[in-house]
Amino acid sequence: MPAHTHYLWFNTRQRQEIIDITDAVAEQVAASGIREGFVLVSAMHISASVFVNDHESGLWHDILYWLEHTVAPWDPGRYRHNDTGEDNAAAHLRSLTMGHEVIVPITDGRLDFPRPVPHRRYLGSAN
Amino acid sequence: MPAHTHYLWFNTRQRQEIIDITDAVAEQVAASGIREGFVLVSAMHISASVFVNDHESGLWHDILYWLEHTVAPWDPGRYRHNDTGEDNAAAHLRSLTMGHEVIVPITDGRLDFPRPVPHRRYLGSAN
Amino acid sequence: MPAHTHYLWFNTRQRQEIIDITDAVAEQVAASGIREGFVLVSAMHISASVFVNDHESGLWHDILYWLEHTVAPWDPGRYRHNDTGEDNAAAHLRSLTMGHEVIVPITDGRLDFPRPVPHRRYLGSAN
Repeated sequence: MPAHTHYLWFNTRQRQEIIDITDAVAEQVAASGIREGFVLVSAMHISASVFVNDHESGLWHDILYWLEHTVAPWDPGRYRHNDTGEDNAAAHLRSLTMGHEVIVPITDGRLDFPRPVPHRRYLGSAN
Repeated sequence: MPAHTHYLWFNTRQRQEIIDITDAVAEQVAASGIREGFVLVSAMHISASVFVNDHESGLWHDILYWLEHTVAPWDPGRYRHNDTGEDNAAAHLRSLTMGHEVIVPITDGRLDFPRPVPHRRYLGSAN
Repeated sequence: MPAHTHYLWFNTRQRQEIIDITDAVAEQVAASGIREGFVLVSAMHISASVFVNDHESGLWHDILYWLEHTVAPWDPGRYRHNDTGEDNAAAHLRSLTMGHEVIVPITDGRLDFPRPVPHRRYLGSAN
């Protein structure tokens, strides 16, 4: 089985941030030469997530608000994990909710994304 | 690597609905001729989910109720994504929670599903 | 495509429990002889989850507490699934949230896990 592995690095400016990594992934898919198969995009930090969704600023706001107000408030005092000296237990729970990796089909050499496409799709990362 | 790609289309009657697509997926697995490997079942709309769970009407009710009352209320007014003219921000958040795709092992030519099997298993889709 | 399938069995002592299965998975990856590829670790019960996260007792407590108090209270009386005679509807909803399977890249013959590694990583199972 032909395989191609690549590591992407990101520097975030805020504690929680969504980054569109679609183009970087598509570039690696092209570099791999794979025509039929899939790409596994897996976070290398367990307080991060990789997901497929819309690149739309209102929705990005909704996702970050929802992670704080519904899924797991940051509030470090409520989590025992933070007794270790870390403050990011909430990020672990958010990552468990949103998922740690995605698999996207490669069909005819391209990322085979959801369609029709009202906005550009992306593979994002939030912690 | 032998690969087989197929697109399934569904027309839903309600805004949110669970559909058992197990038989359709199993048929494609048989058509592929693959004996050992896996099937990637990936939603082509980002407001949809694909998941593995019981085909049991009480549980389906519980899932839909939980999505509305715990995960993300439909209530369009609370989401900024809906300022774009859409009303489905909640469906995006529900899909982020339940997951966008599943990978099921193929062992000896069959979908290698959870067992023992009290009810029939399915790959469902909810938006 | 070389493939290697193995089934792991676990006996839990409590209704809900997290088990570190990393070593057992790594052993199977070594047995497979696969140098570049991936391992699919898929739960064979739909009320169970497989996930990647820290092996840290405070965090494990936080996860179990969060599943009960935020994601889906066990409280059998509130779910229609339990009209079938089962009492585990909450476990189904928890599994839908945390995910049913993970895919971990195999790079140079090893599980290519998140890093840097403050604690040992694991593939856990909770129901």
